[in-house]
Amino acid sequence: MGGNSFGKLFAVTTWGESHGKALGAVVDGCPAGLPLNEKDLKVELLLRRPGRRFTTPRREGDEPQILSGVFNGRTTGMPISVVVWNKDVISSYYEKIRETPRPGHADLAYIKRYGYENWDYRGGGRASGRETVARVIAGAIAKKLLSCLGIIITGNIISLGNTEFPRAKDPQEGLKARLSPFRVIEGDERAEELLKEVLKNKDSVGGVVEVVAWDVPAGLGEPVFDKLKADLAKALISIPAAVGFEVGEGFSLARSYGSRARDRIVPSVGEAVLEGEKAGGMLGGISVGGPIRVKVAFKPTSSIMTPEMTVNIKTLDEVPVEVPGRHDPAIAIRGVAVAEAMVAITLIDHVLRSGLLNPVRVEWNSSCERVWKLYEEYLPEELKASL
Amino acid sequence: MGGNSFGKLFAVTTWGESHGKALGAVVDGCPAGLPLNEKDLKVELLLRRPGRRFTTPRREGDEPQILSGVFNGRTTGMPISVVVWNKDVISSYYEKIRETPRPGHADLAYIKRYGYENWDYRGGGRASGRETVARVIAGAIAKKLLSCLGIIITGNIISLGNTEFPRAKDPQEGLKARLSPFRVIEGDERAEELLKEVLKNKDSVGGVVEVVAWDVPAGLGEPVFDKLKADLAKALISIPAAVGFEVGEGFSLARSYGSRARDRIVPSVGEAVLEGEKAGGMLGGISVGGPIRVKVAFKPTSSIMTPEMTVNIKTLDEVPVEVPGRHDPAIAIRGVAVAEAMVAITLIDHVLRSGLLNPVRVEWNSSCERVWKLYEEYLPEELKASL
Amino acid sequence: MGGNSFGKLFAVTTWGESHGKALGAVVDGCPAGLPLNEKDLKVELLLRRPGRRFTTPRREGDEPQILSGVFNGRTTGMPISVVVWNKDVISSYYEKIRETPRPGHADLAYIKRYGYENWDYRGGGRASGRETVARVIAGAIAKKLLSCLGIIITGNIISLGNTEFPRAKDPQEGLKARLSPFRVIEGDERAEELLKEVLKNKDSVGGVVEVVAWDVPAGLGEPVFDKLKADLAKALISIPAAVGFEVGEGFSLARSYGSRARDRIVPSVGEAVLEGEKAGGMLGGISVGGPIRVKVAFKPTSSIMTPEMTVNIKTLDEVPVEVPGRHDPAIAIRGVAVAEAMVAITLIDHVLRSGLLNPVRVEWNSSCERVWKLYEEYLPEELKASL
Amino acid sequence: MGGNSFGKLFAVTTWGESHGKALGAVVDGCPAGLPLNEKDLKVELLLRRPGRRFTTPRREGDEPQILSGVFNGRTTGMPISVVVWNKDVISSYYEKIRETPRPGHADLAYIKRYGYENWDYRGGGRASGRETVARVIAGAIAKKLLSCLGIIITGNIISLGNTEFPRAKDPQEGLKARLSPFRVIEGDERAEELLKEVLKNKDSVGGVVEVVAWDVPAGLGEPVFDKLKADLAKALISIPAAVGFEVGEGFSLARSYGSRARDRIVPSVGEAVLEGEKAGGMLGGISVGGPIRVKVAFKPTSSIMTPEMTVNIKTLDEVPVEVPGRHDPAIAIRGVAVAEAMVAITLIDHVLRSGLLNPVRVEWNSSCERVWKLYEEYLPEELKASL
Repeated sequence: MGGNSFGKLFAVTTWGESHGKALGAVVDGCPAGLPLNEKDLKVELLLRRPGRRFTTPRREGDEPQILSGVFNGRTTGMPISVVVWNKDVISSYYEKIRETPRPGHADLAYIKRYGYENWDYRGGGRASGRETVARVIAGAIAKKLLSCLGIIITGNIISLGNTEFPRAKDPQEGLKARLSPFRVIEGDERAEELLKEVLKNKDSVGGVVEVVAWDVPAGLGEPVFDKLKADLAKALISIPAAVGFEVGEGFSLARSYGSRARDRIVPSVGEAVLEGEKAGGMLGGISVGGPIRVKVAFKPTSSIMTPEMTVNIKTLDEVPVEVPGRHDPAIAIRGVAVAEAMVAITLIDHVLRSGLLNPVRVEWNSSCERVWKLYEEYLPEELKASL
Repeated sequence: MGGNSFGKLFAVTTWGESHGKALGAVVDGCPAGLPLNEKDLKVELLLRRPGRRFTTPRREGDEPQILSGVFNGRTTGMPISVVVWNKDVISSYYEKIRETPRPGHADLAYIKRYGYENWDYRGGGRASGRETVARVIAGAIAKKLLSCLGIIITGNIISLGNTEFPRAKDPQEGLKARLSPFRVIEGDERAEELLKEVLKNKDSVGGVVEVVAWDVPAGLGEPVFDKLKADLAKALISIPAAVGFEVGEGFSLARSYGSRARDRIVPSVGEAVLEGEKAGGMLGGISVGGPIRVKVAFKPTSSIMTPEMTVNIKTLDEVPVEVPGRHDPAIAIRGVAVAEAMVAITLIDHVLRSGLLNPVRVEWNSSCERVWKLYEEYLPEELKASL
Repeated sequence: MGGNSFGKLFAVTTWGESHGKALGAVVDGCPAGLPLNEKDLKVELLLRRPGRRFTTPRREGDEPQILSGVFNGRTTGMPISVVVWNKDVISSYYEKIRETPRPGHADLAYIKRYGYENWDYRGGGRASGRETVARVIAGAIAKKLLSCLGIIITGNIISLGNTEFPRAKDPQEGLKARLSPFRVIEGDERAEELLKEVLKNKDSVGGVVEVVAWDVPAGLGEPVFDKLKADLAKALISIPAAVGFEVGEGFSLARSYGSRARDRIVPSVGEAVLEGEKAGGMLGGISVGGPIRVKVAFKPTSSIMTPEMTVNIKTLDEVPVEVPGRHDPAIAIRGVAVAEAMVAITLIDHVLRSGLLNPVRVEWNSSCERVWKLYEEYLPEELKASL
Repeated sequence: MGGNSFGKLFAVTTWGESHGKALGAVVDGCPAGLPLNEKDLKVELLLRRPGRRFTTPRREGDEPQILSGVFNGRTTGMPISVVVWNKDVISSYYEKIRETPRPGHADLAYIKRYGYENWDYRGGGRASGRETVARVIAGAIAKKLLSCLGIIITGNIISLGNTEFPRAKDPQEGLKARLSPFRVIEGDERAEELLKEVLKNKDSVGGVVEVVAWDVPAGLGEPVFDKLKADLAKALISIPAAVGFEVGEGFSLARSYGSRARDRIVPSVGEAVLEGEKAGGMLGGISVGGPIRVKVAFKPTSSIMTPEMTVNIKTLDEVPVEVPGRHDPAIAIRGVAVAEAMVAITLIDHVLRSGLLNPVRVEWNSSCERVWKLYEEYLPEELKASL
């Protein structure tokens, strides 16, 4: 399995460069019987889309096309190949800065690894955030499958720079963040103000995303390396610009004491459950039943209007490089959709590994449908129009 | 590949429970030609050993035994099987608390996943921290291989609770932390004082470990899921009690601005390199050449003398459970050796994947030997005596 | 990794159904720097194409389109996604026989595994031989890479029914079989006569393909499960209609004696080599240096004009089913291209695993080019016209 | 995952050399709740044991020791580590022939791959047939799990040289072959006579083993590379000395016609099933319900008393080498136990992948027990005594 694949039973392979002809995902291991169409994918893709507010103006308007694995509206158990054609790609700018790797971007790493001659320098190539389109597509399929277990995945911004935003206390709050252009549960004004300031300074700002998987059954995760927490860490840190990960209270626990850091075990409807979410819903890296909480920290977009010094790779002269155009002032906002997708992909893989869903065929019923419909319901009206 | 294996080319499989007969590691994919003996493994195992100061008194005195894959003192390219026999294991206490899962421990998760009847409740079974013995063994082999590229792995405590300790500025500082019973570069007194207080309160405290891999060549890590940062995240978060991960400045970057968050690219000895380590030595998840920095947060040990309420799994009554005996006041300290091991395993796997070392045979020379010997040199005198 | 992926470092994922919109392959793990274009893929695809003589008349005329992983004519190290659009697909016939699984086809197995409702019954869906288009595409990339080591892969028919054809004694003979419409080194007339007879009887015939990889270096294959012979067996038996595999003399050795079954070891140009190819060029499942020989047996096409009894899956009535249209009288002939592709994919994966080629970047030179050009040279003139 | 691991969900890793301290297997992915003890493993190990009649006199008397993954007599879901200590190993002979690689053995391949200096030349090291002890151990666990689905695995010799023996028509016949020292259903006298002759000639003879998995449910195997037939091919060809594989009628089908090569589909107890076993119980590489039949061809033992010419690896002189001592006149006989084990491992992996058994916990009941007990029942009395 190559580095562009993720998952053991729900195996996602992605391909495609920012300014290439197209990009796509192949999802191998989706059970047969799941209703699936392009609209399902767009429900999630729309929330990743730039151009809502303060984000890169490139109008991707991504139209996913399912090429295989779906017949008569249902998955067949065969690999699902989805392609999104690139458009609106002008690469001339990148030709100009080809010799001057952009600080904070992957340029220099790609040049060193693959060779200057072999590097697709247009728009960051495969290292571009655009790659995450394929993740969101695979995540949409994963989310739909998870609906069959009643699992809902929500994500929201809990901080931008030093400005904090509320955490989701229940699935409704989590879903509500889908309606906000800043993916916050509340505080749109504060977010807007902050980002205006950032843009005025020709700068960008980092942020933290919390993703919650609600109503996760107990028993997901495998000792000792494929713990659920470990696979979630890999999934989230593999996202471009991700630099930090926390399960439950994370680093706060490292500053705390044992007497305060343990979730109590309490009885509830005939079984023992955790009271509290300090551990993020897992013990020993295995889900205990209830919400799973993880956080991912995104660094600020490196593409800003403020030039930075770099080195001409041919001459080794120090020269400034700038990245013109309007850019995301806070990539973390679009990162929410991607982080949700990665959590969904990781969870469905472990659901299948743990035998909680038949890996070959699923029964889709109205109860699954009801859960899945929530994602569409919680779309801003202007996006619904694009469906 | 099961959940107890890690790595694609340098594939580590571990097995064994805390109170079982033995535990061990099978390392498949170590090239032939590496000098290896049991002493090499002990050099690293000793630093993981409890009982140095303030730690669990069980005298593991682990004696690794190499059963395969080494002939005439050199690896043969065949799987290296190492076993460590358990001793000093009294399980009677665990019999008593079998029905009362300990808060913060994996007990409840294992019961739910595998069934109460099938669970090895003695000492946490496979979820015990003792499992990490096998990781350190595999890590020692990885470190020795990495010596051939001049890569040194060091780790040290940078915080215990709210007390901070210095970060390593160079390999010598990192190595120096091996000499400290608290794995700090400096501040033994402060650490000792803190832990005394913690123990007096029958409590424990969390901590943060930073691991640095020095002199890592450029080009490690594969787009887009097997980025070096992503595999490091999985490796470190898979450790028992690990709850947070950062690459470079991590969460600090999420509070920062793009104009300050980018490492400059500067010329150095004929090539472009990073000035600064905000990104932890990677761009796009690929090493750029130089030190790789990651942090892992450990929660406080859940085993403390202060009882906590739990639920009797049979009766569902709420009852207190306590975990008597002396315990690690800060598991993070022993976590340093384990975190280093996981970083080493991840790096060597990517070194092999990237073709920077011949996956079938290595040439061992005096320059490799010199690097490797540093680990032994930087052992406290009392531990050297155990070699 | 899902069931539709193959290879550890050179990881091929295929997708697409016979009568779906398209089919394709994603090749992850091809080093950067390999010159590659669509024509390279067609060189091999043309030899798999039906419609040359006595084969299914569907004029696939497959036009592969490279969507990613190639920039400025060279591979970038990123996943190479190739798509082939389906055309000329009329599915109405399959609608009619949907309830009557065709004997010898995968219909019944797919119905049982995935459910009657979820099965893409058009043209065999994913179980169709058409799936092998993607294998041949990936195989072409593999062959081109192998050219860098001077390895040439040739395949030819050595038997059709009870009629035998010569085995290749050198690469030129192997290549020569590319020029024959029956993929035989010599005996086109005999083959033609046999197939005419078969078609007259509304029947089909089985056949055996031998694939030889010439000038393979020593050291490919890993103990004890990933032996080269084992991975070749999986690769070849995974082809539709493949029912038997032999390495070297195969079943003949099972009828022989130890004193006659061993290849002698002899000196040659400063090293010890095998004299004879009884073992197929491997010992202990590892290549010894020289040609690798394997054989794969194909059963006769199940699609013939002679009806056969089957069971209506709904009523359980016994009913005859026939598969009208012209069909391949000997699927083994087109199987040659597919078998070559699978051998190439398996070999390049082991070449990379064994460190014999840099997994990240390759240097392409005139000597590689010379080897690669042979494949194009040895194309029948009428096919060259389609390039 | 390294080359010494096999299986995706039921993941077997083996280690150990012929003349090393020990060898063993780690089975990761066995569900919790399976009763397991050392005797279960011996039931199968005894049938692999040499020294019954005409086989190598080394009295292995292998005593497997379970070190982990079993608690209170049941599996816990954790990796099961089993070790077998080597004894009776005298390596001095191999010292003498170290420079003269034995024809037909892996010596030359290992020297070329790993280097003369790094090669464990004692008794073939890891390439020794002794390695298969670990396979049989893992196979015993697999067989026991398969008992829960009512699947029985039997194997028997169907030919030795040109002497043929009957194929199993039902499970009882298959089991009966366990009682024969030559693993034939009938014809012990003919086998004995043949082998006496072979031994008299200081020679050895090849043979073919058929393995049948009885009562396999429909739906095992995944398109398009992980077909059941493909994974069985890899499993069986990975065995030392295996040189050929057939599913169903195999090569005979390649000599046959489509009109005769298709199994009819017939109604049976409310479903459609195959009449006949030409396809070995699979269509499209997926099980259809019923027996699965595969064959594996073993070449004659290369270790015979008749010397053969080889090359001194240092001097490149041509010299004879002989392998003194008594040897297996037909390694295929002991290969039966190994082939059964590999089929069992492959099947249980696909059973788990297909969701036909809970991958985390199994319920063991009297019906499972009844199936499993058959293996012990069908042991020759003299072997039962060793249990």
